[in-house]
Amino acid sequence: MQKKPWPLHDVRHWLEPGPVVLISSHWQGKSNIMTLGWYTILEFSPSLVGLMISSGNISFDMIRQSGECVINLPDVSLADTVARIGNCDGDQYDKFAEFGLTAEKSEHVTAPAIAECHANFECRVYDDAVVDRYNFFVMEVIAARVKPQPEWPKTLHYTGNGVFRTDGERIDKRQLFTKVS
Amino acid sequence: MQKKPWPLHDVRHWLEPGPVVLISSHWQGKSNIMTLGWYTILEFSPSLVGLMISSGNISFDMIRQSGECVINLPDVSLADTVARIGNCDGDQYDKFAEFGLTAEKSEHVTAPAIAECHANFECRVYDDAVVDRYNFFVMEVIAARVKPQPEWPKTLHYTGNGVFRTDGERIDKRQLFTKVS
Repeated sequence: MQKKPWPLHDVRHWLEPGPVVLISSHWQGKSNIMTLGWYTILEFSPSLVGLMISSGNISFDMIRQSGECVINLPDVSLADTVARIGNCDGDQYDKFAEFGLTAEKSEHVTAPAIAECHANFECRVYDDAVVDRYNFFVMEVIAARVKPQPEWPKTLHYTGNGVFRTDGERIDKRQLFTKVS
Repeated sequence: MQKKPWPLHDVRHWLEPGPVVLISSHWQGKSNIMTLGWYTILEFSPSLVGLMISSGNISFDMIRQSGECVINLPDVSLADTVARIGNCDGDQYDKFAEFGLTAEKSEHVTAPAIAECHANFECRVYDDAVVDRYNFFVMEVIAARVKPQPEWPKTLHYTGNGVFRTDGERIDKRQLFTKVS
């Protein structure tokens, strides 16, 4: 299904609920994918996301050197793939080939997007001042694309020890919201 | 129900899935509560959590001055309360009284825990080096208590615009996990 642009200031709609994401990166002719559950929205506009990427991971160097990555949002149909990607090393495999994922050309970064994911957020390093201390990259989302359907996909939330939870029902409390957020 | 201690290195079990939390703080005789969806686990041990707390919020000053807070994990039964707390200001209300919440004495910090929440994580500021730049507090969890039942409570994940999602079913992929995490 053709993805559509999503407003950059509203990336939080997809990432604030805390789903596991797949981070794709590219450097010197090689692409890699890693799983990530340690990240947070930092700002609406500019659209900032903070990623805690362990320096032991090959993606750490690739993102640091290239200054770019794509945050890809898998849904529950990719649960096995997510688990497997989190359990193999990028220097041993081409993960796109290994897991039958399609590397889609990005608009603004060299890192490929993962076509099979529900949404793709192209990112550029905004500030690397805290990378040495906490492996924490402040990234700016510079392009966002989302599948129009389903409107509320079931994503994966990692709890450790190999167990995920998926999203359940929606709870609409709009009538209690007086502030805009 | 009596809460039990939870291992500090495994706070991620509760917070990595990304649920909305209630942050309680205390300074100069006043307590406050705010909702927070912008945070991330940063390290297993020491048990570090990064909190993005907007400087416009009264809790920002209370946490900065006291160097402490409690991260409280509400379940879906508190959805109305969570929505209401997110929509009123701490300088106008005593939120514990206003919302009928019980302020429970903490072990190591002056900030009270919220008795009605499923879990309470007492925190002390570990590093405030990035507070000026990103309102991002690196906190160390120094005590953790969790209700023994239910084992898998339904929590709330905020998507913006007054709409939450709750947790759905569990997906056990332990057989695919070869690494310990």
